[in-house]
Formats: sequence, structure tokens, C-alpha cells
Amino acid sequence: MAETPLRFGILGCANIARKVSRAMILSPNSTIVAIGSRSLEKAVEFAKENGFPASAKAYGSYDAVLDDPEVEAVYIPLPTSLHLKWAVLAAQKKKHLLLDKPVALNVKELDLILEACESSGVQFMDATMWMHHPRTVKMKEFLSDPQRFGLLKAVHSVFSYTGEPGFLEKDIRVNPELDALGALGDTGWYCIRAILWANNYELPNTITALPYPEFNKAGVILSCGASLSWEENHKTATFYCSFLTNLSMDITVLGTEGSLRVQDFVIPFQEQSAVYHENVNLKFAHLSIGCEPLPSEHVVATDLPQEARMVREFSSLVGVIKREGSKPEKKWPIISRKTQIIVDAVKESIDKGFVPVEIVY
Amino acid sequence: MAETPLRFGILGCANIARKVSRAMILSPNSTIVAIGSRSLEKAVEFAKENGFPASAKAYGSYDAVLDDPEVEAVYIPLPTSLHLKWAVLAAQKKKHLLLDKPVALNVKELDLILEACESSGVQFMDATMWMHHPRTVKMKEFLSDPQRFGLLKAVHSVFSYTGEPGFLEKDIRVNPELDALGALGDTGWYCIRAILWANNYELPNTITALPYPEFNKAGVILSCGASLSWEENHKTATFYCSFLTNLSMDITVLGTEGSLRVQDFVIPFQEQSAVYHENVNLKFAHLSIGCEPLPSEHVVATDLPQEARMVREFSSLVGVIKREGSKPEKKWPIISRKTQIIVDAVKESIDKGFVPVEIVY
Repeated sequence: MAETPLRFGILGCANIARKVSRAMILSPNSTIVAIGSRSLEKAVEFAKENGFPASAKAYGSYDAVLDDPEVEAVYIPLPTSLHLKWAVLAAQKKKHLLLDKPVALNVKELDLILEACESSGVQFMDATMWMHHPRTVKMKEFLSDPQRFGLLKAVHSVFSYTGEPGFLEKDIRVNPELDALGALGDTGWYCIRAILWANNYELPNTITALPYPEFNKAGVILSCGASLSWEENHKTATFYCSFLTNLSMDITVLGTEGSLRVQDFVIPFQEQSAVYHENVNLKFAHLSIGCEPLPSEHVVATDLPQEARMVREFSSLVGVIKREGSKPEKKWPIISRKTQIIVDAVKESIDKGFVPVEIVY
Repeated sequence: MAETPLRFGILGCANIARKVSRAMILSPNSTIVAIGSRSLEKAVEFAKENGFPASAKAYGSYDAVLDDPEVEAVYIPLPTSLHLKWAVLAAQKKKHLLLDKPVALNVKELDLILEACESSGVQFMDATMWMHHPRTVKMKEFLSDPQRFGLLKAVHSVFSYTGEPGFLEKDIRVNPELDALGALGDTGWYCIRAILWANNYELPNTITALPYPEFNKAGVILSCGASLSWEENHKTATFYCSFLTNLSMDITVLGTEGSLRVQDFVIPFQEQSAVYHENVNLKFAHLSIGCEPLPSEHVVATDLPQEARMVREFSSLVGVIKREGSKPEKKWPIISRKTQIIVDAVKESIDKGFVPVEIVY
């Protein structure tokens, strides 16, 4: 039996909503029924430009989307400062919630959102697309292999980009009223998620921000880094995130028996397939004049773009809730919350002068 | 006019001396005239096994090598604790000095060695082989290109390996009497050098070791990491070095316009040529459903193995001193000393509980 497609409403006409609208159209178990903007004209235009179904409604407010009984789920790509208000309202109106990252300005706000979702029995998921690429599954299989990868020892991740001209002057991501977390909330979110993902979402004991982050005049972070440390097994991780450095999207994971490298983890260089590299039991050759065996390249094809797989997964989880009256899948809010805990700790370490921040949980 | 080959003596039969002996034979401007070991038998055996010229002498002591007037230069692959004594003695006996890394247990010891070299007018170079690969030159050209790479923002480097079975029990590199710096002195040396190399040898302002390094029972470092930070231009670097993690040898250098990645910087996977990758002005494609242009792979062939190029460069510098009576090239002792300054600072940060250590210079 084919699932009834999940009926999405979208709050706002953010640029990223173009990509996610396309994903909703590509995904076989979802459809778009409404979009709301503070400007009705913008909403109408957006729906037209992005190939929305003819039946999709355009509204001149976000409230109208939430009040539309046809809307079962909402995607919220609004600036982070607006998440608390609109995510809580959406949950209260029983809309399942696909929320863009960073999900909140801090864990306290996120907890209010998650409580609202739990009270209403709606599914929560953050829109971290790479989590849904089949490459991510393959890479995790490798990291879980005791013979080929062994025990995890160290992770390094990077996400940086320089944005279009004018980005540093006017983008919402560098406006303290809209996205106070700056590069840490935007690009750092991915680095932190990658580190947690590699560590099976085990929180570190200590987080220390690196000295000399960059800020704009309004005090918004434009670049920063941090180290994460686990007392058990002496695991370590570092990351660097920036709006001032050419596009880079690396994860390097080192284990006792092998290592993994990927250079486009956030958005694969190409849409149809994505690559990663494994080193397995790499050793120096005789006399140490070379190494063997050579790293192996792994290409993972995908049936749908990763964002469409995200929409499909979200819609499928909501489908289960609708059909079986079950409770929402807990995995997604849990990993969002862990990611936010680290974001908060890095921010705290920066604010306090790069002191180590202990994670208490 | 062909150079007269530089006449090398070797102190000790360390494993690494097999590779460097081969390099001395491969290099067109050097030859081996003597090897000394505490055991004459071992020295004789070593010379035979490693294809030494029939005229090469085997001695039952290091002193005998230093007292041989035919020996113009010595290569010292002894454990680090012995460097001060034998390097100073070699310099005093007017032998040019190719000294394995880590060059000393600390800067104070290194300064005594460098002072002895300067007094005697002999050339000093540490045996950090990758510095001499033509790939290193090519990569530096890329990092110096304002259009393709831009300004440097961040570096990450890794060197780890797990050693042969028994390594952790009996290798000199984990014996506090012989190599008290452990993985920091051995593998960390390369990471630190890579970071300095990328930064044009500009010393950072602050160094902070990462929490939870690993030690053996004797207190020798088996794995550790650190961050290096430059106040000017907010540059940052991190590294991880280990004896407990599968072989990894990465440098990732991020700039405002491009980025560079190499995965075998210490010892290229293959001897004849070596690879690195450039990203130049990488951007998200339309709708951010991919990126362009794709990274480019660069293959750099080498006329000689990097260690033979190192020997050739060293011999050539000594040749200039011999022919022209000039002073030794200062570049090499200067970068050895800067590397040792960072090694010391990481050690100090670890010993003091991972506090930031300011570099005063």
C-alpha cells in the first residue's frame, strides 16, 4: 500500500527553502500544500518559481500556514532567533516539525521546542541533510568494523565557505538579531554533528574553544574552532568552522586499524554519487620507502538527493505515527539536543576566554 | 665540474640508518666512509647488509668515527637522549651534522648543539625528509598564490602509526631513558614542522595541548594533540600525533581562496611520485546541490627518493662551505629550533594541565 503523501507547509521564503521544496517534490511520500511569507506577493512568486503543485496555497503570514488544517507538517527555515516562537507554535498546532539548523539559540530554547513537540506527539527532525545520504550509512559501517577500522581515536572536521559577495554585510547568518551564533551555529553545527556521529553520539567530557576566533562588528562569530575530549579511551576531536575560508567540508576519522576521509560531507561535490576514502591497516613498506596498501576510494550512488532522502525519512516517520498512533521517533530530537549542547559549550568557552568547559549530563 | 662526494660517517646501526645509507648511496654527491656501533660485529654486518662501498670502515665505537679524518660529515640516528653528547662532540671535531629528529630533548640542549656547530663552522640539518620532496616545493607554490590559495586561515596535521608488534614494549621511542618525548618528539615533530612550514615558519603566540593524552607506564607520551594560535590574522592550527593509531600522515591547509590536502606527507605512499590535491575557489553550485570546480589532483614525480634529495641538499651545502670557505646555511638550524620550541611548549602545556603556553621570542 502506497503511503499517503505527507502534506507540508513552509514558513518563509529563505533561499534554502528552494532546495528543500525541490526535495519535497522529488520525495515520493511528500507534497507541498502551502507556503507563508510576511509578503503574500513573495509567497506567490516563490511557489511559482519553485514548481509547487498548482493546488498549493500561498499565504501572507506564517500563522495562516499553521492554521491551515490541510498542513500536516511544517518546514521552518526561518532565522534562528525566530525558531522558538514558530517551532513551539507549530508543535502546539499539531504540525510535525522539520526545523532548520541551528535548531535554537541554546539548549534552553531547544528544550522548550522539544517539550512542545512531545506534548503534541509530533515528530521533530533537524534539517541536517548529509545525515541522510547513503554514503553516511556506508561510512558508519566502516567506522563500526573492528577489523578494518578498530577503535576510534581522533576526529577532525571542517566546514567553511566564504558566501556570495555581500554575505558579510547583509546575510541573516551574520546579523546578531537573527542568527546570533554566526558561523558556529551555521557551519560549526555540521562539524559538531560529524564528530558526534563518528563517536556514536557519546558526549565529550571537555570542550575548549581555540583562541582568536573572528567576529564581525556586531560581535557575531565569523570563524572559530574547538577541541572536544573524552576521558574514556582518550578520544580527541577538533573542528574549524568559518565564513572567511574557501569552501571546505572535511571529516577525518582515525582508528587503531584504519582511517576514513571525506572531503564533501556537507554537500557532495556531485548529486548522483558521493565518494569517501578508506585506509585499512596501512603500514610502511620495507625500509619505510613507501606505504601499503594504498587507500581505497568508495563511490556511493544515491537514489535521491540527500535532502529528498531527508524529507522521505521524515515523511515516513510521520506516516508511522499517523497509521499506528505511535509516539514519534526519539533519535532525531536526541541528536539535535546533543549537537546543541556542544554548540552552547563552545560559545561558553569563547565567552569565558577559551577555558575548558565540562559537559555535565 | 662535478662535486667531490661528501664523505659520511654514521653513528649507530638504527633501523632508520638503513634507509639513509641507501640515500647516501643514491645521492650523486655523497659516499659512506665509516660506520660505528658499540658492537664492531654489528657495524660490520650493517655495512655488508646495506651495500656500503667496500672501502667503508666499520668501527666498534662512535668515537672512532669522529676521530677518522676521512669522515667529513656524520649522520646521527641515535636515541634523542644521546644527541647532546654526540652532536656536540661531532661538531667540535669539525664534522658537518645531519641529525635525526627530534633533534634534542629541549631547546636548551639544542642550543648547545647549534652553538657547537656555529663555533666549528659546520653545517647543521635535521633529517626531516619530506621537506626535500619536490612535492613540498609545489605545494608551497600553491600556498603562496594569492589568487588560487589566498591568505592562510587554518592548518590541521596528523602523523600516527602503530609500529610493529612489540613496539610499545621495547622500542627506543617509548623508553624514557632514550626518547623521553615519545610520540610528541617522533610523530609530533612532523606535524609541528608541517604547521610551521605552511605558516612560513612564523611562530604562533599560544599553544595549548589537548586534554587526555596517552602515556605508557614510564610516563612517555604515546598520543597527544595541541592547538597553535596566531593573534595576527586569527590563524589557527591543530595536530594529532600518536603511536596508537593506524598510519595517517595528513596536512590540510585552508585559505581564503582555496585549500590544499595531502595524505602522505611524511612518507609518500609510492617512492617515484607523490600526490596532493588543490581546491581553488570552490563554490556551491546553483541551489547548493553540488560544488564546483572539482578538486584537482597533482602528481609530482621525483628524480630521487626524498631522503636521497635530503642527503644531496646537505652535501651540496657542505660543498659550498668547503669550496668557498663560507658560513653554513642558517635556514636549517633556524627551522629546527622553531620546531623544537613548539615541541617544548606542547610538553609544557601537558605537564601543567593543558594550560595555554605563550611563545616568547
